[in-house]
Parts: sequence; structure tokens; C-alpha cells
Amino acid sequence: MYCLVKFAPLFLAVAVCNGWLFGDFVGKLKELDEISLWPLPQKFQSSAVAFKLSPARFQIVQAKQSSTGPSCSILENAFRRYFEYIFGDLKKPEKSRKKVYDSDLVELQVWVTSPDPECDGFPSLQTDESYELSVDEPSAVLKAANVWGALRGNSSKIKTSIFSSQQNNINKTDISDFPRFAHRGILLDSSRHFLPLKVILANLEAMAMNKFNVFHWHIVDDHSFPYMSRTFPELSQKGAYHPFTHVYTPSDVKMVIEFARMRGIRVIPEFDTPGHTESWGNGQLVDLLHDMYSSLKSCFLRPCFHSTYRSCRESNPDIQKFMVQQGFGTDYSKLESFYIQRLLDIVAATKKGYMVWQEVFDNGVKLKDDTVVEVWMGNKMEEELQNVTGAGFTTILSAPWYLDYISYGQDWQHYYKVEPLNFPGTDAQKKLVIGGEACLWGEYVDATNLTPRLWPRASAVAERLWSDKSVTDVDNAYNRLVQHRCRMVKRGIPAEPLFVGHCRQEYKGL
Amino acid sequence: MYCLVKFAPLFLAVAVCNGWLFGDFVGKLKELDEISLWPLPQKFQSSAVAFKLSPARFQIVQAKQSSTGPSCSILENAFRRYFEYIFGDLKKPEKSRKKVYDSDLVELQVWVTSPDPECDGFPSLQTDESYELSVDEPSAVLKAANVWGALRGNSSKIKTSIFSSQQNNINKTDISDFPRFAHRGILLDSSRHFLPLKVILANLEAMAMNKFNVFHWHIVDDHSFPYMSRTFPELSQKGAYHPFTHVYTPSDVKMVIEFARMRGIRVIPEFDTPGHTESWGNGQLVDLLHDMYSSLKSCFLRPCFHSTYRSCRESNPDIQKFMVQQGFGTDYSKLESFYIQRLLDIVAATKKGYMVWQEVFDNGVKLKDDTVVEVWMGNKMEEELQNVTGAGFTTILSAPWYLDYISYGQDWQHYYKVEPLNFPGTDAQKKLVIGGEACLWGEYVDATNLTPRLWPRASAVAERLWSDKSVTDVDNAYNRLVQHRCRMVKRGIPAEPLFVGHCRQEYKGL
Repeated sequence: MYCLVKFAPLFLAVAVCNGWLFGDFVGKLKELDEISLWPLPQKFQSSAVAFKLSPARFQIVQAKQSSTGPSCSILENAFRRYFEYIFGDLKKPEKSRKKVYDSDLVELQVWVTSPDPECDGFPSLQTDESYELSVDEPSAVLKAANVWGALRGNSSKIKTSIFSSQQNNINKTDISDFPRFAHRGILLDSSRHFLPLKVILANLEAMAMNKFNVFHWHIVDDHSFPYMSRTFPELSQKGAYHPFTHVYTPSDVKMVIEFARMRGIRVIPEFDTPGHTESWGNGQLVDLLHDMYSSLKSCFLRPCFHSTYRSCRESNPDIQKFMVQQGFGTDYSKLESFYIQRLLDIVAATKKGYMVWQEVFDNGVKLKDDTVVEVWMGNKMEEELQNVTGAGFTTILSAPWYLDYISYGQDWQHYYKVEPLNFPGTDAQKKLVIGGEACLWGEYVDATNLTPRLWPRASAVAERLWSDKSVTDVDNAYNRLVQHRCRMVKRGIPAEPLFVGHCRQEYKGL
Repeated sequence: MYCLVKFAPLFLAVAVCNGWLFGDFVGKLKELDEISLWPLPQKFQSSAVAFKLSPARFQIVQAKQSSTGPSCSILENAFRRYFEYIFGDLKKPEKSRKKVYDSDLVELQVWVTSPDPECDGFPSLQTDESYELSVDEPSAVLKAANVWGALRGNSSKIKTSIFSSQQNNINKTDISDFPRFAHRGILLDSSRHFLPLKVILANLEAMAMNKFNVFHWHIVDDHSFPYMSRTFPELSQKGAYHPFTHVYTPSDVKMVIEFARMRGIRVIPEFDTPGHTESWGNGQLVDLLHDMYSSLKSCFLRPCFHSTYRSCRESNPDIQKFMVQQGFGTDYSKLESFYIQRLLDIVAATKKGYMVWQEVFDNGVKLKDDTVVEVWMGNKMEEELQNVTGAGFTTILSAPWYLDYISYGQDWQHYYKVEPLNFPGTDAQKKLVIGGEACLWGEYVDATNLTPRLWPRASAVAERLWSDKSVTDVDNAYNRLVQHRCRMVKRGIPAEPLFVGHCRQEYKGL
């Protein structure tokens, strides 16, 4: 006599779900695939016509016209990765199957158009990541100027094929896509807590799924120095949490860089340049920088004046004497500027680029024209963006995306709603904002909780930095992100849930 | 010329760490072991004298005087578990070793004193969990009235032996211990998100390490009904997220109960009793309760009036008619009370105990004298404790321990600082508060993030409920909890870090 319909919503939900899982859904495909793409492509057209993908027949190949060849291992590697992901455990040809689909899709041709496909290169800020994907019978064609665009296209292609009834079909699709911002980064911190290699690699995989292209590796800091330098091995011997188990060997670093390269991701390691390296003399500092640059390609430098420095500077007679000599009086900011300036002069002499945190700009240090300034302070973000770009510097934004700050509920929506160019400035100034970063600082994060804390919250930042400015519908984003998150879970990445619900395949680990 | 001592704190930290890891530390053992116990025993005495534990010689045995025998599998199981944990991968006898320690400890004798050791029993609210542990040469003795106390003592013993230089030694110790509160629970929610069995079992393991003794299993709710009832299989067939992959079979439930029993943990499943079961008639409701009780021993009943109910009750003519018949007018609270009362009458007839959330008490429903009321609302917690105990009901507290609410920083300290008996009432009233529960509701939690979100935050609740009221020093707790958390990590449980630092063995999973 009471509420007979209490369970009705559940029954309905199950019915809908069963429809997706087992039913005839060709008519639903268009809608379904549209909502499952993340980040949303710039241009996207999909039809209800669906093609069957059979693991026995389907192959990913390089197009005949492509400037790449079989030796382009970055592509061959990606083909294997994506094939495995699409077909999963399905190893055997299907013996009998119903003819449900319009026809079969037999191959994906990957066509790299530029004379230099960059197979052995590294992605850079100038990399053209655009691609065009056309899914039609009998072949799909993925066209890109270079391997990096091809990687981005592959990542989209698998998304169009994953959330369908048997998982092995794909609907007629045309995608023309490119990123809104060139720098789309994730900062991880391996100093406050050591991050085992496995965790870093898994997160590079997740980054690729979200079209991130920069791994900002906050590799060392006051707390520990796990980077094993060939030039100065004593830094990690004495500075790491443990000299054997809590370090990154040169081979580890090399592996991270190559693993990232295979996914179109640049690694930008950040080096604390502690005051005491001065005691080694400039020659040695150049050696250290050379060591970093040669193995690491590019570098984020952090002139570092922390509490330990502040507590000692006033009691150190050498510092006091130097202050007097230079006529700084008691103005320690002059001392810091002096140090930073000398450091950057040394770096400039190596003729490599560098990035700095906003304080270096704020302190009036003279920077090279091509310096990238990272705006991270949340309180006067818009004013800072105005000032930094007004001074003509290239800028990336991380202030609204400190993902180590957690709270109850769907905070991904806050990250999603940020508009990076929403500050007063000319068009020329806006163009200087080349992207942003989601930062996961390590005070409360290590291998135990890093991955579920980062994903899918960072995915919100990924779409903001890739998709068009007009893509701002939070409800639509929620529906797509729920599915995108389940794709990550399916791939073994423990991305946490957005809200109540389930994935067809739940996380299998602990 | 700059800050030469910048790295000094790091060097010092490493030196201290190396001292622990490699150095001569016998003199430090007492201090070290004292700080590593969690939850802190009621009485504890330790000496600097240390004994060597050799995996080749050491054994855990039942004392000759013990009322248990070789067939007491709950003990034999625990012996194996703890032996493996203490010695880990060390399988081979050590060929040569330096004589550093006073002497060897060759065995731990476990002595169960009660004529009925309860080897095949289940822990209950009345269970005596006290134990005495004396570590001295040549034998350590663990004395307890029954197997449950023996389990608690084993858990303490391994803690005294883990954080030492070679991991395989133990210092002279006397512990006399018992819990402050009898009910120390963890609530997990498998309805909002399905929790794979593996995750539940891993968390039972973590619970045992923290001396929790109740698993409050919020097994079903509006969102999904994963409990596969033998009597009413359609409930999970239609109500689970997926009828095959997202359900708990009777065998699963049996395994959870047995796995928990082996660790001295009671399983209290919570059943939503939706209004529409009324439509089956009382006979069938009794059948369902019988099914639950027979397989599940005890039960937490939740008369359930949620939004779906509220939205339908006003549009359902049967309900409207019934309201008029009973003379309820438009007072729906009378309708709810009527339903709850009938439900509890049925339960009472089964002559089993039950627990209810505080609303049932607040709504003036007549409860059996032995009903346990759970106080969970945070706003008027002290008043509610006063009222519920004032009415003579046994009470457990969860209001301050909703661990699904997360925030940045060390929120475990808030949980730790709670004093459950800090409400106005007589001594008799205080005695009615039999414990508490840490609740991890599932809106934002599933297998991807449950374990690091629960631990070690729940450990704070564990110590509050086990240790003496006077154990309130947060700094001391921090130092012990850091080590306790590393013990969990070592055991494969991804307990998240409290703050910057490291474990000797970091988490190996993802």
C-alpha cells in the first residue's frame, strides 16, 4: 500500500543501461559517441552509420602516401598500444557473428604529410598537433602534419570506438582538431614524497589519454634530492630520502623521457638552484646545468630562497660582508635579485630556454625575451597575467589549478569553469598566454593516493586547454567525463568517480 | 658565500635515518617502540634489552596450558599471517650473523585461559578483548581469555618488532591491554558504488591492524542493490548496477564474514527496508529478514524514507486512502512512524538485536530496550547523546567521524581530538556509549580511492576508541601514526601519507 514505485527509477536505470549494454543501439550511437569524446574536438561530425571493427581483420597501418616508414617506431608503438586497448583480451577471430552493422571497417591509414615526420624528434612548444580523422568504409584515414598530431588523433579515434555495445565498432565520423593552447601540462612533485617510476609512467599514460603534452617534473626540492646527477652524485647520495631506493638514476630519467616522447609529451624537469651551489663557483654550476640540459633537453629553473635560507642569511658573516660590499644595506631582496640575475646569465650563456615562477618576474629580475613565466598565485591572478603579458613575456597559468587542494564534492567543475584569457589586455597580450598546468604538489600525496587524486580532476583542465573557448556546458561535460573516466579505469588507471554510479569494468587493483 | 648550511637539515635528517636503518640502536629501542605502537596500549612497559628474532628458529605456538588445540584454526591462521608479516621474504636461515643482541627469543606462547576459547565462535559486543603480553627470554607469552584477545595481542606484538634495525628483533616488553570501547566500527558503502570483494577484504585486514572490531556494511541502498538474496533473487537481478558483475553472491558474503571472523571483526550489514516490501505482505518480509539473519547473524535496519518515496506518497491514491483510514490527516511523519513501528515489531518477533540511526529514536518510535542507536548528526551531537542515553538506550557515535568529508591538510587530528563522552549526563548515561564508527559514504568513493582515503584517517578513530581517555597528545600521536602508516603500506595497504616524508618501503602498487 506504500510506495510501489520506489524502485521504479532503479528499474528504469537498469533498463537504459541494458539498452546500452545489450540492445540494438545503432540509432543511439551518434549521441553516445558525441558525448563520450574528451577533450571535445574543435570540429566533429558523426553519423548514425556504424562500422564493425573486427580484431581478426582490422589493422592500423601507415598510409602509402605517408612520409613515415616502418622504421618510425613512435607510430608503430602507438599502433600496438591502441590496438590492444581497442580489442583488449579479444585474441581469437570471432567464429560467428550477427550482421548488425552496415559494413566492416578494415583499416585505419595513418598519413603523415610533412616531409619531416619527426619520428625521432621531441615535441616542442612549436609542434603542430592538429589532425584530421575521417572514419568511412572501407578505410579510416588519420591525417596529420607529423607524428605528434597522429598521436593526438589516435587518442581520439579510440574514444569513438570504446563506448559502443560490443566495444568493437565505430561510427562514421569526421574530426578536424587542434589544441587551443600549445602548453598543456601536469606538475608532479617527487621531492616531498618520492614517486616510484611505475607511478610516473602510469600518469604519463593518463596524460596522453587527456591530450596533455607537458610533464613538469618538480623533481627536487628542499625536502629531498632524488635526481642522481652524473656530475654531482653526492647531491642524491646525501640529499635523497634513501641513496639507493629513493632516487632516479640517469637510466630512470631517460626512460621517463622516452616513455613521454612516445606519447607526445615533453618532460620539463624543475631544478631548485640552491644558494650553496655558489660555493662551488660558476664553473661547477655550469657543469651541473650542462648535465641537466644534456640529459633533459629543457629545464625549469627555480632560484630558491626558502626558510632555511632566510634563517641563516642573517647569521652568516660572509653574507653580511657581501651585502656591505655590494651596497645592498639590509635589503635582502636586492641580494636575491643579484643571485637570480647571475644564475640566469649563466643559463642564458648555455643558449637554452627556461621557465620561471612568477616571483622572478615580480622581483624585477631582467629576463631573456623568450622566458616563460608561470603565474601560480591565486589572489591577484588577473592583474599578474596583465602585467606579465604586458611586459611581453610568454605565460602559462597554474593559479586556478592547484589540484593538491582538495575539498568535498565535484571540484572539477571549478577547474572546468576557468577561462584563462579572462583578464584585461590586448589581443597581443592574450596571445602570449600559451597554456596552463594542473599542479599536484606533494605535501599530502605519494604513490598511495596520487593517481585517483589527479584523475579525472585534471581532465577538466585538459579540456579547458584543448577545446574551443565556447565549450563550457558543465552538464554536457559531466556526461562525457563520466565515460572518459571509465575509459581510464578500464585502462588500469584508478581515476576516482565523479559521483554515484558505476563503470562497466570497475578498477581491478587495490 | 651564500647559505652554506642550507642542506644541513637534510644531512642531519639522513644521518638520523641512517642511524635507524643501519646503526647501533639498542639504546634507542625503548623510545622507538614506545612511539610506534598504534593504538597505544592501556599499560605498557619496555626495556632497552632486545632479543633477536630469527626466522629459522622463532615460532609462534599454543601454550601447553592453553584451552585451545591444534584444531583452533582461527589461531593457526593468525600465527601464519603474523609470522609472514614479521619475517616477510626472509625464507632462509641466516648463515652468519653478528651477536649484537642480549639473546634470542625462540618462541611466542599463546595461552588462552577460558575453558571455552571460542575458536569457532563469532565476536560479539560482550567479547572480552583484553590480553597480556610479556616478551622475555627464552619465551614470550601472550595471555588472553579467548581467541579474540589473542588476536588483539598478536597485532600489538608485531608492532613491537617491526620498526627496529633489522626488523627481526623485539625488546623486552610488558603489555596489559584492553579496549576503552567495545564497539569500534568502520562503515563502508557498497550501494552508491559497488566495491569489489578484494577491496573489502583488504580493508578488513587494515581494520584488524587498527584493532577495529565491527564492519558496518552499508550493503544496499536506493542507488543499487548488490546483495543477492537467496529468498528474493530479483532484488539484485533488477536492482544491482549489473546483475552478474556488480553483486555479492551468498558465497561472497560468507567469505567476507569468515575473513572478518578470522580477524576478530563482526560484520553488521545494513538493510534498507523499502516501503514497497509492504506490498509483499508481512509473511514475505519475515522471510527476507530470516534470510538476512540466518546468513548474516545480526543486522542494522534502516527504515527508509527517501526522495523517491516523498515524491510518490502524495500522488499515490492507496497512500492517501490509508492516511484517511488511520486518521493521520496530512501528517506524513505519523505514516512513517506507523511503518517503522510495524517493521520493528516484525524484527522483534525474530528475537534478534538490531541497530537504528538516530532518526528512528528522534521520531518517537517505540524501540526494544536493547536497541543500539547510532548518533550521526553533527549539529546537536551532545544534546542527542544526552537524550538517547537519557532514555536508557545503548549508543554508538559516528557524527564526528564522517570520513567521506575531505579537506586539505591533516584532518585526522580533528577526528583524534574528539572525546566521545564529552556530553552532559550521569555516569550511567556515559556507560551506555559503547563506541563509535568511522563512516566512509560512497558518493565520491569506489575501489579507485577508498583505501587511501580511509587510512590512516580512520586510524585516528581507532586509537580514540581503543586507548585510554588520557591519550590525547597530538604530536606524540603524529610520530606514532607516521610509523603505523608505513606498516600498513609495507603490508600492501595504500594508506596515504600524513605529511612530507617517506617510508622505508614505499607502496608498490599503483
